[in-house]
Amino acid sequence: MTTQEVANTLVKLCAEGKFHEAVETLYSDDIVSMEAGAPPGGSRESKGLAAVQAKSEWWTTNHEVHSANVEGPLVAGSHFAVTFKLDVTFKPQAKRFTMEEVAVYKADDGKVVYEEFFYNM
Amino acid sequence: MTTQEVANTLVKLCAEGKFHEAVETLYSDDIVSMEAGAPPGGSRESKGLAAVQAKSEWWTTNHEVHSANVEGPLVAGSHFAVTFKLDVTFKPQAKRFTMEEVAVYKADDGKVVYEEFFYNM
Repeated sequence: MTTQEVANTLVKLCAEGKFHEAVETLYSDDIVSMEAGAPPGGSRESKGLAAVQAKSEWWTTNHEVHSANVEGPLVAGSHFAVTFKLDVTFKPQAKRFTMEEVAVYKADDGKVVYEEFFYNM
Repeated sequence: MTTQEVANTLVKLCAEGKFHEAVETLYSDDIVSMEAGAPPGGSRESKGLAAVQAKSEWWTTNHEVHSANVEGPLVAGSHFAVTFKLDVTFKPQAKRFTMEEVAVYKADDGKVVYEEFFYNM
């Protein structure tokens, strides 16, 4: 798949709420995932498919998604950008909020090898 | 200006080749600019308007822009993404090439306070 095809597939899956399926089908074993900030005592960076699957699993378990607006992709070379606007409830605190973020991805050989998220902390 | 207005203005100026004017009119005194990689002996990060003006000046002096394709912006919260596809000649080596990159910006109080570029090294 070209970068454009990887990007289109990722946007389609995320717009359908299939975040976990996007990770399972599109991510490289060597994925590096970078958050805007580190959790307490943790790192901004998750390395490897198992670590990113665990992060995705934690997120899915702890959030109820009421609606997902996904825009993009904008593709340039091996990279592409997508925006997410998610209306979610963080279940442990029953706290509903809107997440707005820019995500940048790098594709290599048909797989996502890097992702980074930009949002206010 | 809202993030959307800053983003639209930046895209308009860059599409017209007015990269330097974008820096002069839209960038905060406290701008932080991050390249995908560091130059030999240098840093990925430029801090402050003077440093970013100097980088912009160097770039403008050393490149002839044959065409500039700017797409976006995609806006989410305080951040936005833009793609650049530039057909340029690096004048010191008379070397013509295409630059393709994703740029992510953060706006605060109507000014660009952070930018980061994603491209293959």
